[in-house]
Amino acid sequence: MPVPKGLSDLSPWAAHLCLRTERFIRELASPDLPDMPDMAGGTLVLAVSGGLDSTAMAVMAKLLAPRLGVGLLAAHLDHMLREESGQDALFCRQLCDDLDIPLQAVSRGVKSLAAQWKTGIEDAGRRARYAWLEEVRESVGACAICLGHHLDDLAVDQLMRLIRGAGWPALGGMPAWDPRRRVLRPLLAIPKADLRRFLTELGITWREDESNADPAFTRNRVRLDILPFFARENPDYLHAAAELWKQARADEKHWNEAVLQANPQGGGTDWRFLENATLKASSQALRLRLYKRAVEALGPGQPLAAALHGLDEAWRNRATGKRFQFPGGKKALVTRDGVRFLPGPEPGVDTSGSGG
Amino acid sequence: MPVPKGLSDLSPWAAHLCLRTERFIRELASPDLPDMPDMAGGTLVLAVSGGLDSTAMAVMAKLLAPRLGVGLLAAHLDHMLREESGQDALFCRQLCDDLDIPLQAVSRGVKSLAAQWKTGIEDAGRRARYAWLEEVRESVGACAICLGHHLDDLAVDQLMRLIRGAGWPALGGMPAWDPRRRVLRPLLAIPKADLRRFLTELGITWREDESNADPAFTRNRVRLDILPFFARENPDYLHAAAELWKQARADEKHWNEAVLQANPQGGGTDWRFLENATLKASSQALRLRLYKRAVEALGPGQPLAAALHGLDEAWRNRATGKRFQFPGGKKALVTRDGVRFLPGPEPGVDTSGSGG
Repeated sequence: MPVPKGLSDLSPWAAHLCLRTERFIRELASPDLPDMPDMAGGTLVLAVSGGLDSTAMAVMAKLLAPRLGVGLLAAHLDHMLREESGQDALFCRQLCDDLDIPLQAVSRGVKSLAAQWKTGIEDAGRRARYAWLEEVRESVGACAICLGHHLDDLAVDQLMRLIRGAGWPALGGMPAWDPRRRVLRPLLAIPKADLRRFLTELGITWREDESNADPAFTRNRVRLDILPFFARENPDYLHAAAELWKQARADEKHWNEAVLQANPQGGGTDWRFLENATLKASSQALRLRLYKRAVEALGPGQPLAAALHGLDEAWRNRATGKRFQFPGGKKALVTRDGVRFLPGPEPGVDTSGSGG
Repeated sequence: MPVPKGLSDLSPWAAHLCLRTERFIRELASPDLPDMPDMAGGTLVLAVSGGLDSTAMAVMAKLLAPRLGVGLLAAHLDHMLREESGQDALFCRQLCDDLDIPLQAVSRGVKSLAAQWKTGIEDAGRRARYAWLEEVRESVGACAICLGHHLDDLAVDQLMRLIRGAGWPALGGMPAWDPRRRVLRPLLAIPKADLRRFLTELGITWREDESNADPAFTRNRVRLDILPFFARENPDYLHAAAELWKQARADEKHWNEAVLQANPQGGGTDWRFLENATLKASSQALRLRLYKRAVEALGPGQPLAAALHGLDEAWRNRATGKRFQFPGGKKALVTRDGVRFLPGPEPGVDTSGSGG
């Protein structure tokens, strides 16, 4: 496989695409996102499947690594779900050899894991994949795991979140940097068509994953039916999706800070009580985020918007004694002095306010 | 046509639906929405087409009018676009007679208006309709024009806004109370299926508008293809759309107040300059809303999110002298001391900060 040695081997268009990606990564590390580690001198783990997205990511990462001052390590998980999966693994081996990136690869029977974990194939595949990527990351102390999600994936994710009933800013879609899982998505602002053109220009091939066309998965139906409909109605739709994402990131940061400012105790560990004075000094928009944060601080399980609105209405109406249930058995109780949040009954639930 | 005399003539389900609608209207008039006029003693103009939505609205309005203390007046515009439109007008006449609501009806040739105004049929129909409704409203000094938009319409509107690239909170959909046009949408939280059940229970018929099925309109394609897809994926989707709308309303109020607080001069007339001190004290999320408000205060034309993001980036990078163009010829200029906003060249553009 022909591999470019540096940006100067590329067409101006392809070089520009790489520089845009570098800028996207550097902006994530700007003061606006203090959670992003300084990656210079560190290692990035590249999740490679052999598909278009991760192949383009591996090539770009190789070209940008000297500029970013990072080392690279690739990781591949053979899900053993399709007959060709062994060939995908061989393709990844060859790609990484050509790019001179070390590769760690294993096989896991995802079908039997799904049965064992009593979950769907898609979910089991995701869990097995993330577990393996984290294993590789930890083994070398890498600063991040890079996933090949691109702008089309982001637009699909926004639609999936809309369908599921996500609120704002969650509706804006997946983050480019997830500090909890140390996941980095360097291609998130790039349309898939640009990745295809990039590899085609370089004469680099990739493997097609047929399961991406399986309409049994909602995600595929959204990608194959809904997204093309939106793009026909608005040819600039992917751009609009990227702008929505940017706005969601700005709002997310705003609300995170506003929530901490409104409830200074929460900066420490106490999200179990929001007193009337705090709630009265807050707009309804802020109160809804305070409740959400308080419920999330009690442990896993996302509160539904309807329950948060109901809780706020009860607080406004001084409905002392009224209780609200949240996923994970968590509860909120309107008291005379404010709103109290109670953890679920399960053992091992984190009540230490880890989100703070 | 059989017409119920009061809520006690209804099934518990239908009476509950009416009471929910009354509560929805009263909540709009709560302290959270100070723009909503106190309607007691006033008149509501009901826009009736003869279709399911406005027929249900007229029946409900009749039942709730004594409780709300309002008088009713119906208005119908015959668009003369379909052969049956004369029968729609006759139906409205009969309905209003049965309900004992006075009706003002006229015919306008929307097709020739569209040619005259150099616009599409859908747009010309909307403009002719609103002009007529406002004429009727003004003639009696009514406090509001009631439109029959329901929760399915709201969900479609959200998707249309998403497709067009709207930001947040505009993405949450049309307001239930639009103070500028004095438009009230009392059914906005009610699924269309509930309106159908309501009329069916009462034995009241309505006219089907076949143009609602015409796939030449994006809105119809969204209603007939996309919304059913979303509802199949999430049977509770309409409920989720209503929650998103509620959150958008809370956020809209929050940002409107935050913008005025951040730029106290703007409370008067001056949105033409945002100084560095104001911008530095604001989060990026707030800055984006400050720019938007400043551009809107210069006159008609919505700024695109991409331009606002670009402007903020230029301000962050102290790119003094950099200019940005907005619809309507409006401009923003990064200066050493802040960001200056300049009206477009058209005569008669309102630069008085009417949005303030």
